[in-house]
Amino acid sequence: MLKVRPERSPRERILTLESMNPQVKAVEYAVRGPIVLKAGEIELELQRGIKKPFTEVIRANIGDAQAMGQQPITFLRQVMALCTYPNLLDSPSFPEDAKKRARRILQACGGNSLGSYSASQGVNCIREDVAAYITRRDGGVPADPDNIYLTTGASDGISGWRSDGLLDMTSWLQTILKILVSGGGKSRTGVMIPIPQYPLYSAVISELDAIQVNYYLDEDNCWALNVNELRRAVQEAKDHCDPKVLCIINPGNPTGQVQSRKCIEDVIHFAWEEKLFLLADEVYQDNVYSPDCRFHSFKKVLYEMGPEYSNNVELASFHSTSKGYMGECGYRGGYMEVINLHPEIKGQLVKLLSVRLCPPVSGQAAMDIVVNPPVPGEESFENESVEKESVLGNLAKKAKLTEDLFNQVPGIHCNPLQGAMYAFPRIFLPAKAVEAAQAHKMAPDMFYCMKLLEETGICVVPGSGFGQREGTYHFRMTILPPVEKLKTVLQKVKDFHIKFLEKYA
Amino acid sequence: MLKVRPERSPRERILTLESMNPQVKAVEYAVRGPIVLKAGEIELELQRGIKKPFTEVIRANIGDAQAMGQQPITFLRQVMALCTYPNLLDSPSFPEDAKKRARRILQACGGNSLGSYSASQGVNCIREDVAAYITRRDGGVPADPDNIYLTTGASDGISGWRSDGLLDMTSWLQTILKILVSGGGKSRTGVMIPIPQYPLYSAVISELDAIQVNYYLDEDNCWALNVNELRRAVQEAKDHCDPKVLCIINPGNPTGQVQSRKCIEDVIHFAWEEKLFLLADEVYQDNVYSPDCRFHSFKKVLYEMGPEYSNNVELASFHSTSKGYMGECGYRGGYMEVINLHPEIKGQLVKLLSVRLCPPVSGQAAMDIVVNPPVPGEESFENESVEKESVLGNLAKKAKLTEDLFNQVPGIHCNPLQGAMYAFPRIFLPAKAVEAAQAHKMAPDMFYCMKLLEETGICVVPGSGFGQREGTYHFRMTILPPVEKLKTVLQKVKDFHIKFLEKYA
Repeated sequence: MLKVRPERSPRERILTLESMNPQVKAVEYAVRGPIVLKAGEIELELQRGIKKPFTEVIRANIGDAQAMGQQPITFLRQVMALCTYPNLLDSPSFPEDAKKRARRILQACGGNSLGSYSASQGVNCIREDVAAYITRRDGGVPADPDNIYLTTGASDGISGWRSDGLLDMTSWLQTILKILVSGGGKSRTGVMIPIPQYPLYSAVISELDAIQVNYYLDEDNCWALNVNELRRAVQEAKDHCDPKVLCIINPGNPTGQVQSRKCIEDVIHFAWEEKLFLLADEVYQDNVYSPDCRFHSFKKVLYEMGPEYSNNVELASFHSTSKGYMGECGYRGGYMEVINLHPEIKGQLVKLLSVRLCPPVSGQAAMDIVVNPPVPGEESFENESVEKESVLGNLAKKAKLTEDLFNQVPGIHCNPLQGAMYAFPRIFLPAKAVEAAQAHKMAPDMFYCMKLLEETGICVVPGSGFGQREGTYHFRMTILPPVEKLKTVLQKVKDFHIKFLEKYA
Repeated sequence: MLKVRPERSPRERILTLESMNPQVKAVEYAVRGPIVLKAGEIELELQRGIKKPFTEVIRANIGDAQAMGQQPITFLRQVMALCTYPNLLDSPSFPEDAKKRARRILQACGGNSLGSYSASQGVNCIREDVAAYITRRDGGVPADPDNIYLTTGASDGISGWRSDGLLDMTSWLQTILKILVSGGGKSRTGVMIPIPQYPLYSAVISELDAIQVNYYLDEDNCWALNVNELRRAVQEAKDHCDPKVLCIINPGNPTGQVQSRKCIEDVIHFAWEEKLFLLADEVYQDNVYSPDCRFHSFKKVLYEMGPEYSNNVELASFHSTSKGYMGECGYRGGYMEVINLHPEIKGQLVKLLSVRLCPPVSGQAAMDIVVNPPVPGEESFENESVEKESVLGNLAKKAKLTEDLFNQVPGIHCNPLQGAMYAFPRIFLPAKAVEAAQAHKMAPDMFYCMKLLEETGICVVPGSGFGQREGTYHFRMTILPPVEKLKTVLQKVKDFHIKFLEKYA
């Protein structure tokens, strides 16, 4: 690489750590992942030929399906290619149903081109397709395109650590929370989030100078959400802030639990009682593996609970192109649906979204294919179904495989991976390991993950980055690697763990 | 559309105009464009068959090239299609040079797919291509890929009003300013911006609670930047804030002036003297039309001024896929180059960028083609050159045409459109029109533009949205419509203006 900075020492800079915005430093610490930085250093060392007990770093820290070898869904890429280079619409090598969708999307774009701006809320026909998808998903509960907002990377930030280990702050969460946050001192807005949480939440909350209100998921009960715990948390919070928002992640990240319908009803009733605005992060709605689990959207349950709730409870829910079986993280497509939002606030929201972001049109188009896949009778339906089944079937196998193998390891307990794409096993660390960690000024599970990385090349994220009950330790690992590779990874973790226990016994 | 909100009146909402974040309301007013909202209403009325003195709304308010009929550059779309659907790499109907670039981009993507995350600073090989482009552009002045940050829509927000009339706040400006803003009271960070400005700047500044410091461009001198005016502005500002940042837009938006090399030298010397961090918005660097004007990058001039400057002056400059001859607004690709940034701050920047945004990989790929077009000897060079020449040649014609026609109208004065893609003519309004506007509680040029829209369907943006000297009135109009259409638009404006003058004589 070229060297720009000349050798002679410059005069003092205007922008230094001392002169910079202190708030930025604060935010950064909330989301920084030293493990993943270390992984980058090790990769460089491997490239430089430095010998290690392993030949590659396996980035099991991030939910990046295609980076792990998952093939893109053919139909989605065909439509995207047709939209990108419309000359292909004359090509016989593309199926008619893909061309039909591409034409429809292009007709809705300025100048029939992905290269034009779209309205800030998103391309109209795509918002209509999203609404139709939601209506189908929720068994006929109507969805209004006016309530749909297409966003940039609605879920990338929610879906996993970035490849560089830093969280990608998502537009929707910042946008909706920015509108919600107000007051000062004891009337500062309190935002309830699950622990373990996805650190995006704590980062946005601290950046917006809101108050984080923790509620703990029940690890002994497959990470279920217990409404009594919500009550405890909100009561305690009222002493020092004004709890106004309740964040739900279902299926859970990092914990992978899938909430029962009953649980969702209880949560909605609680939100109604306590006048809390519901934020439902539902980006893993297609990623449900346990045969005895089903995804229920908050929207659907809300409507089934009757008008007292469906007319009153304010809800924003989120989905994206990054997860499901498409796994198109790079397109950064996503949507937000709002329910019972005050009309004036909808105006504010559209304005703020417009100010904050412009959804890339290619990402919007990708979102359209996610919600509008081939249907029976269409040329591509068969192939699409095979590809979909293969991705989701494999994920289900790997979820079970991971749970089983972890639970064979002494000192590791792993709840069932009911959904999403991560395992979040609990690791029982000997006192000596905890002392060693303290000597290194590290959280014990950070110490453990760092050793795991250094000795095996496997990069996972310590539970301390997500939050966990005092004295418990975990790590988050994606199940995205191909089955054979995943088996190797799990075996390596097992061997490492046993050695680790011996060393610090 | 489906109706979701039931009829029965809901209980009081949690989120209302009263309870929401007051800061959001404040920001919104800085960027809201009522004219463009009105344009939307009129379009709906036309769709409903309501008769108007015109058949379509012409959105001359936004720099949206392809929406105005500009065809995408074939090569760029070919490479993008190949990256999107790699099966096409086997197709004989795509040129080898396009395939070569697509392969190179894909090899740099996780899993060889645009569907994977990239590093938060952007794909390495694309940052290298950007650095090589800058080095070529600046006649050999070296650029370091480490100083390049690929961003989301580095310039969409800078390039024009959104189609819905709201500004798209851009990531780079928020990110770099967020790091720079600090202090309170009189030590609050002051940010110098040109007047007329692109309202994105005032919006970001107010949102970050920094202090806006205006310097006026010299309309009598083709909107030139005069360093004495910078001196006046910074001296006055020091009474109430700490001026730390100087924003430059070159070529100018909305004013279209192209800064001379001498002017840039003076600005850099001033920034050096006053210890100001330079933000150079150079997204129109390819859009220079006046034969006696040339684009000089701040980076190049900085280096030619010698080590005292090139080692010390801190600079961030910006470019994007949206302008130039590619006009790919929808891809939201862009980059920022930083010079003399403190190494620690570069770390902070990469962290903040990672937190703030994830550049969509398709936008990064599009940026790569913008900076890495076909070269002589490559298969696509000829066609690319023809397409490029046609776009830029037409823009130059239209720039001259617009200036000439406006200056034929009594009561309109239009400076030469040296660059960018807008005219910002001054309109001399009769006292009676000003009174009528005041009676309608509108800025006089807002009143004028509203009437223009209602009577002709032509949507332009009043100068009051950009800032202008007290008692002067302007509007901004894009020159992007095809020549024949542009002539019609200009004729309609002329006829309207003459009638307007008669009416309020």
